[in-house]
Amino acid sequence: MKAKLDCIPCLFNQAFRTARAATDDRILIRKILNKVGEKIKDIDLNLTPPEASLPIYKLVEEITGNEDPYKDIKKKHIKTALSLYPLMKKKVSASLDPLKEAVKIAIAGNAIDMGSTTENIDIKREFLRIEEGEFLLKDLELFRKRIQEEDEILYLSDNAGETVFDRPLVELLEDMGKNVIYAVKEKPIINDATREDALLSGIHSTIISTGSSIAGTVLEDCSDEFLSIFHSAHLIIAKGQGNYETLSDVKAPIFFLFKIKCRPISEDTGIPVGVMMLEKSKAK
Amino acid sequence: MKAKLDCIPCLFNQAFRTARAATDDRILIRKILNKVGEKIKDIDLNLTPPEASLPIYKLVEEITGNEDPYKDIKKKHIKTALSLYPLMKKKVSASLDPLKEAVKIAIAGNAIDMGSTTENIDIKREFLRIEEGEFLLKDLELFRKRIQEEDEILYLSDNAGETVFDRPLVELLEDMGKNVIYAVKEKPIINDATREDALLSGIHSTIISTGSSIAGTVLEDCSDEFLSIFHSAHLIIAKGQGNYETLSDVKAPIFFLFKIKCRPISEDTGIPVGVMMLEKSKAK
Repeated sequence: MKAKLDCIPCLFNQAFRTARAATDDRILIRKILNKVGEKIKDIDLNLTPPEASLPIYKLVEEITGNEDPYKDIKKKHIKTALSLYPLMKKKVSASLDPLKEAVKIAIAGNAIDMGSTTENIDIKREFLRIEEGEFLLKDLELFRKRIQEEDEILYLSDNAGETVFDRPLVELLEDMGKNVIYAVKEKPIINDATREDALLSGIHSTIISTGSSIAGTVLEDCSDEFLSIFHSAHLIIAKGQGNYETLSDVKAPIFFLFKIKCRPISEDTGIPVGVMMLEKSKAK
Repeated sequence: MKAKLDCIPCLFNQAFRTARAATDDRILIRKILNKVGEKIKDIDLNLTPPEASLPIYKLVEEITGNEDPYKDIKKKHIKTALSLYPLMKKKVSASLDPLKEAVKIAIAGNAIDMGSTTENIDIKREFLRIEEGEFLLKDLELFRKRIQEEDEILYLSDNAGETVFDRPLVELLEDMGKNVIYAVKEKPIINDATREDALLSGIHSTIISTGSSIAGTVLEDCSDEFLSIFHSAHLIIAKGQGNYETLSDVKAPIFFLFKIKCRPISEDTGIPVGVMMLEKSKAK
């Protein structure tokens, strides 16, 4: 999907949040805000939101020299999520429908998103509130059926920390004998997971890089190696808004698992903000 | 208090929110965002936040020709608040401490603020949640004492709709024989109350204009008539963040009643975001 007018103030907020994470120098932060202000007129709403946001993140990197502003936050999120991992596994094994439970946990983990407007993320609360959460697992039965039919599943990850929330689902799929290929970003962008983050999170599957360091999965920016896996995949799990934003118009066997975090996505999907959803791609 | 770095993205968000309220024309909204972007470098953090925001609101007005983007929203807020007025009065008369109850209602009404980051304001919920709300009425006993000592009280109002929440306190003071002078803005700015809004809200006190159309109370911009009342007042009630932002450094007998809505104010007061407070001015 293309970026919307709403994305413009959101990008400005992201610039400020990232600038603050990248440096304590107030003069540099002000400089970033001024430069982002000048670039507002150049934001191209024909791009997807992650593509439109890239120049803003590059600017923060250029001005602060910090290539990974969310490094410490990512580590902290992974650590907190790991402390909850035994409870996640218990929840799944105690459930009458382990797949559904693992799916819910994986989607709940999508709250760990430094690109969205949330300032402070309370990971424990997100986990403990799963039971109260609003889930709309529209295509769960189709998802269940497709899993049974396929041996290999491409799993497009989203954020560091969320990676731990992915494990119950990934491990359930592996226990069913499926080969899960877990795709991460080539280099840090926002708090998206890299290979290092996935390993720290205890992901034991085959980990591949998309070859890209843009949030979501912008196929034009991915490596040939990743593209050959993507295009030959018969079943793809895509986590997070960024993957929805960049792949919603791509014809592929994708199930999107994410939390609706803003009005543009709510309008595009017809689902209210706050809802956690599983939906098959509608691209034709 | 002076504006902070946080105020810059907040102003950008305010511009977008106000642009959307002022027009449905997406091209005009984009034009506003581009122009605001260009003006970011000119935002003067030596000003108070309401003064720093003024050029942004002026820009929305210039580009859309809409002098009162929140006109309909203000009317709607007043109407909803009026539907709760009988419950407010009941709450006060049933309380063992009517003044405290009226103060709490007045502060709870401060949630009705289109300048802060809240997109949708649920006025009924704000009212029904008063009991659960976090109040920090630090200087309530001093306030009570000062009321008893004075015959005349200058009441600096804040937002339309909040005006109805002011009534139980204003009317209680009048029942005690006090003369309440209720000050409003000269012309519309954000959703701040004007004379018309105060009248629609059922304020029966003497209503005066500050002479200014900047949020809060910027004395340099007020009329001589208002200034003579302000400077001779022995007891002033100032509602809302805007009044705190513009008067916190002014030596005057002010009690601030408002909800803490953002980090800069939280840092300035040392009180967490979300807390509803009553505090005497500390300016020396």
